[in-house]
Amino acid sequence: MTNVLDEGLAANRTDAAGFGDKGELAMPPARRFAILTCMDARLDPAKFAGLAEGDAYVIRNAGGRASNDAIRSRVISHKLLGTREWFVIHHTNCGMETFTDEVMRGLLAQSLGTAIFDGRGCRDAGPGPGSAEGEFVDWLTIHDQPSSVGADVRRIRNHPLVPPDVPVYGYIYDVTTGCLVEVSEATEAGRAR
Amino acid sequence: MTNVLDEGLAANRTDAAGFGDKGELAMPPARRFAILTCMDARLDPAKFAGLAEGDAYVIRNAGGRASNDAIRSRVISHKLLGTREWFVIHHTNCGMETFTDEVMRGLLAQSLGTAIFDGRGCRDAGPGPGSAEGEFVDWLTIHDQPSSVGADVRRIRNHPLVPPDVPVYGYIYDVTTGCLVEVSEATEAGRAR
Repeated sequence: MTNVLDEGLAANRTDAAGFGDKGELAMPPARRFAILTCMDARLDPAKFAGLAEGDAYVIRNAGGRASNDAIRSRVISHKLLGTREWFVIHHTNCGMETFTDEVMRGLLAQSLGTAIFDGRGCRDAGPGPGSAEGEFVDWLTIHDQPSSVGADVRRIRNHPLVPPDVPVYGYIYDVTTGCLVEVSEATEAGRAR
Repeated sequence: MTNVLDEGLAANRTDAAGFGDKGELAMPPARRFAILTCMDARLDPAKFAGLAEGDAYVIRNAGGRASNDAIRSRVISHKLLGTREWFVIHHTNCGMETFTDEVMRGLLAQSLGTAIFDGRGCRDAGPGPGSAEGEFVDWLTIHDQPSSVGADVRRIRNHPLVPPDVPVYGYIYDVTTGCLVEVSEATEAGRAR
C-alpha cells in the first residue's frame, strides 16, 4: 500500500460518501456520444466537453489514436449501447509528437526504465536489461496534429464495422487555453501546404 | 453541427474561460501513476480516484482490458513520462459481461445498427447490411470481474516491455456505491470456488 494508493482510496471514500442516487444511472449513456482522446494527464474529457457522469463513453489511449482497440470499443458503444455521434480529440503539446518508432525501439532495447530527457533530447536511464519486443509494436506516434486527427477520423469512417450514418468529428484541444478547435479537411490541407 | 456538439462546445467555452493558469501544467503527470479502466459513461476516473487535472494518465477502453493498445499506452507512460504505479480498474454492472464473442459476431453479421434489447435478451435492429468482419475481432468480453481484473494484472506484469519494479494493482469499482474494492489473488480464488 503506497501513499498514492492511500490518497486515491481516501478520495474515493469521500466521493462515495456523497454518491447519493448516482447508483441509479443507466448503462446506456444519457447523451449517446463517444469520445476518443489521449491518456494525457492534463486532459479531463468530462470537464472540457461539459460532460456529467452518465453522459458519454470515453475511450483513451496514447495520442487518442484510432487503434484497433479503440475501434473495438466504439463499435461496442454503438452496436450494444446506442452511441450516435463519435468524436476524435487530439491535443497540442502531445508527448506522441516528441519521438518516433525508431527512437522508442532504440530506448527500449537499452533498458525498460524511464528515459531521462535533457536539453539535447532523450537519453536512456540505463542500466538494462532492455527488450527487442519494442520492434513488434506500432507506437502510433504523431507528426502533425491536424493530419493525425484527419487520418484517424477517416480510418474510423472507412472501417467495415462502422455504419455510414454515424457522424465522426475531429477536434484538437489546446492545453494552453482549454479550447477545442475543429479539424476540417481544409485545416488539414492548410497545415500540409 | 448538432445539439450535442453545440452543448459540448458551449461547455468548453465556459470551461476555457475559467482555465486560469492550467496552461502551465507540465507534460509528465504530477503524481506519476496510470489508470486503465472502462469507457463506461458512469465512470469518472478523475473523480473516483480523487484526481485533479495533471495527476495521472488515464487509459480507457471497453471493459478496461489489458489489450495490446492499453499496454502500448502504459509502456509509453512509464518509459517516456515516468509513471511509477499502474492500476487496472474494472467495474460492477459492466456491459462487457452481457454478451459473448459469438453473440456480438452474430449481431454484426445481421446489421451494423444498434441492437434492440428486450426482456428476453438482445435482438437485432435490422435491416442490414451487416458485416462478417466481427469474426476478426476479439471483443474481450468479461465473464467474471475478479477473474478479468486478475488476468489483466497478470498479463501486464508478464509483458516483456513492462519492468518488474512497476507495481500493478487491480480494483473493482462498484457503480452502485462509488467504492473501489481491491482484487487480490485470494478474492479471485474465493469467487472461482
